[in-house]
Amino acid sequence: MCTIDLNCDMGESFGQYTLGQDEEMLRYISSANIACGFHAGDPSIMNKTVQLALKYNVSIGAHPGLPDLQGFGRRIMSITPKEAYELILYQTGALHAFVVANGGQLHHLKPHGALYNMAAVDNLLAEAIVEAAYHLNPEIILYGLSGSELIQAGNKIGLRTASEVFIDRTYQSDGTLTSRLQSNAVIKDVNKAISQALRMVKAQQVTSTNGTNIAVKADTICIHGDTANALDYVKKIHEAFTTEKIMIQAI
Amino acid sequence: MCTIDLNCDMGESFGQYTLGQDEEMLRYISSANIACGFHAGDPSIMNKTVQLALKYNVSIGAHPGLPDLQGFGRRIMSITPKEAYELILYQTGALHAFVVANGGQLHHLKPHGALYNMAAVDNLLAEAIVEAAYHLNPEIILYGLSGSELIQAGNKIGLRTASEVFIDRTYQSDGTLTSRLQSNAVIKDVNKAISQALRMVKAQQVTSTNGTNIAVKADTICIHGDTANALDYVKKIHEAFTTEKIMIQAI
Amino acid sequence: MCTIDLNCDMGESFGQYTLGQDEEMLRYISSANIACGFHAGDPSIMNKTVQLALKYNVSIGAHPGLPDLQGFGRRIMSITPKEAYELILYQTGALHAFVVANGGQLHHLKPHGALYNMAAVDNLLAEAIVEAAYHLNPEIILYGLSGSELIQAGNKIGLRTASEVFIDRTYQSDGTLTSRLQSNAVIKDVNKAISQALRMVKAQQVTSTNGTNIAVKADTICIHGDTANALDYVKKIHEAFTTEKIMIQAI
Amino acid sequence: MCTIDLNCDMGESFGQYTLGQDEEMLRYISSANIACGFHAGDPSIMNKTVQLALKYNVSIGAHPGLPDLQGFGRRIMSITPKEAYELILYQTGALHAFVVANGGQLHHLKPHGALYNMAAVDNLLAEAIVEAAYHLNPEIILYGLSGSELIQAGNKIGLRTASEVFIDRTYQSDGTLTSRLQSNAVIKDVNKAISQALRMVKAQQVTSTNGTNIAVKADTICIHGDTANALDYVKKIHEAFTTEKIMIQAI
Repeated sequence: MCTIDLNCDMGESFGQYTLGQDEEMLRYISSANIACGFHAGDPSIMNKTVQLALKYNVSIGAHPGLPDLQGFGRRIMSITPKEAYELILYQTGALHAFVVANGGQLHHLKPHGALYNMAAVDNLLAEAIVEAAYHLNPEIILYGLSGSELIQAGNKIGLRTASEVFIDRTYQSDGTLTSRLQSNAVIKDVNKAISQALRMVKAQQVTSTNGTNIAVKADTICIHGDTANALDYVKKIHEAFTTEKIMIQAI
Repeated sequence: MCTIDLNCDMGESFGQYTLGQDEEMLRYISSANIACGFHAGDPSIMNKTVQLALKYNVSIGAHPGLPDLQGFGRRIMSITPKEAYELILYQTGALHAFVVANGGQLHHLKPHGALYNMAAVDNLLAEAIVEAAYHLNPEIILYGLSGSELIQAGNKIGLRTASEVFIDRTYQSDGTLTSRLQSNAVIKDVNKAISQALRMVKAQQVTSTNGTNIAVKADTICIHGDTANALDYVKKIHEAFTTEKIMIQAI
Repeated sequence: MCTIDLNCDMGESFGQYTLGQDEEMLRYISSANIACGFHAGDPSIMNKTVQLALKYNVSIGAHPGLPDLQGFGRRIMSITPKEAYELILYQTGALHAFVVANGGQLHHLKPHGALYNMAAVDNLLAEAIVEAAYHLNPEIILYGLSGSELIQAGNKIGLRTASEVFIDRTYQSDGTLTSRLQSNAVIKDVNKAISQALRMVKAQQVTSTNGTNIAVKADTICIHGDTANALDYVKKIHEAFTTEKIMIQAI
Repeated sequence: MCTIDLNCDMGESFGQYTLGQDEEMLRYISSANIACGFHAGDPSIMNKTVQLALKYNVSIGAHPGLPDLQGFGRRIMSITPKEAYELILYQTGALHAFVVANGGQLHHLKPHGALYNMAAVDNLLAEAIVEAAYHLNPEIILYGLSGSELIQAGNKIGLRTASEVFIDRTYQSDGTLTSRLQSNAVIKDVNKAISQALRMVKAQQVTSTNGTNIAVKADTICIHGDTANALDYVKKIHEAFTTEKIMIQAI
């Protein structure tokens, strides 16, 4: 039987500020990436989000980001690999404490935002990040962009990895995501996104923007939780997978 | 044979800023309380300080504080017990990650500054702090002011506790520290401080400001690391204990 | 003709986080208190909010708070009067820059949250705050709780002051607000709130919880912008004042 | 008579952390660039540093940086020109408040660290920064790297500018600084640095690394205050200029 993991960023509220509909989303996904306080989240939000994920039996991952709350971790910062190693350890350790205190287990780690993108192409940064995960707990599963330097570094050090694909983004014939600067980068039609999703999961293939079939490793699908219609979107994906008898479960 | 633990706050540098002579102090103490990034310290400093403590075979403790870098965690903030629980978990978890990554073990936890003082007298805050420690790891040893609510709460929940005394502070006949608002609060003469230290360790007694002998539980002595002559001070204490054949070792 | 000022806290969003319906509220009020980056707000939000206030011809005030984003400036912190002076200057200066750059004028200053409450009863803190305002610009109008230490300090140093009243809070016979710990602290019925408002403005009187009439100086009314029905609320107040031919305008 | 401005970064302490020997340096320089709280400095430090600069009759400049205290504003961040505009306004406004409150005048503005370097080569960023300065006060003098985009943008918008040179750095034949990645980037011999300084000031020339003479506009010399021998260094420079009858004074 075919299975797929649906992961979603969570716990991105902060203090008085609320972002996302975490509890509602948790009904439809299998993995939650929980913000760790640098780009979003705070100790109270982290505690609450961990408890929610456990309630809905959703696997818990650390989602560490750059130290940039105003920029939501989306602005590139020129940190060194050593600094990356240290901020991954710090944030993942902090989240781990809430998981342990609530009787759960830390399942995976997925870098956030600019850090995710930088680690996809920068080999030294990727190596530093996977070392942090491995040193903390070699059982942690590393989530990263399918085909990226991060996934390669994770495999090399001996971590289990989950290759992440985007069902609402188009792909180039070399397997990379079409840049957001291009007008055809995003698939706005949810039905087209679902078609792409099903093909990725069932055939591990995707059609590139120039029409060629390319292979893509699809272990986990990223579901965006911070858009207005996120809940509607995830429900449709959930329904499509269920209809196709594809089981949604964490790695 | 008589033993005593000497503990010192460490890792209080931040970014470009250096505070304390951590490596030098580590030669003379048995327990290091390492700042966790809220009142002082950052991921790089934490990593480096953990490595130094391991190099000198000094027991590592988390030293979480209030989220107030400018005030160095010394300004009272009206946080709720729930918030205290959460910020202790967050910071202790973060430090724990560096300890694990460097092959060590987290030995103890000592709240910092205003949090330490608030938890000494506020039962609800004390209970929240010890719960955080207990939920993370029931083997963590709790360091707190001798005779305080924090130590009581720690004992009650089932943590091992270490009662901390101050050798350079005078005591009232009820066993509390003389307020710093009083002129006789601080013992400036290092020889008098050492005399008080030896008596505390050997007889578990101290002479109060009005001359009466009072009992004091002394498991660990707080050594200040951020004063100009800290290094000189700790050397003299170390020498005095060695001469008296009192072994300096962690709990 | 009778006039009253309606003021509302604004610009409390931060980065990706949105709070309040600033633009809609601006249609009904006469004074905007704009957060300055310590308890809420960031440089981008401040710039945008200043521009909105100018667009709707609403007087602009600085709304500085304690350095506690997670706690939204509502947690008491034991800062010194000197520290209060400095954080007021810093934040008010920052907002002033956006006002000047957009061709406006800084009209008033109102401390936020815990700082507002602390300055209402702590004479030394109040004096430090009014000094900061006065040193920056003696033309700034000080907004503070009617009858508070802050208003007294403002008058004493020579600032123009605006005494603020709350139309949805009950008053004690000594003129102070009923503590929120009491069940009758808040007036939930909007019509009762409006009745109290009209009486405050027209007669400078309010009925205390034990039925006595007391005098109250009412220059400006605080409108809460962060509740779900804030917009509905302000519309009703605006309508009631218009019907009664009370002109809504800044001091 | 020949004159030159010596400027030095100041007020880079934070909370409990002390950096630099500000008061001692102020005896030898003519312009102080005061950190504004984002990369270094806090409201208390800013107030104190402004008072010191006024005491020594040194011109006061804002020294705004990227929001990165841990990285001391030295890590590149991909901020937009709009964000640059806003963070310059915020920080310069904050410093301006302390200057006004202490009876002084804001003389200049010099971006810090990575922001300075980015603005030297990025035209859009440079334009945003000079707009912020101009909108706040068109009388502010802009300090920037000699020959940079920042200086060009400043001249274009109508600000007075001061071209900054480095006496302890070597220059390429195209007038740019030798990259720090090159072994000959820094002039370690203070006497050579002074020779270069005198030639820059008197002849507006410098010898490039390949021996050619190149023209350089030298209005102000950057003195580093955060090195161990900074004080010794500035004394020697001060003495050399005095001997040569070059007057040290702000623009």
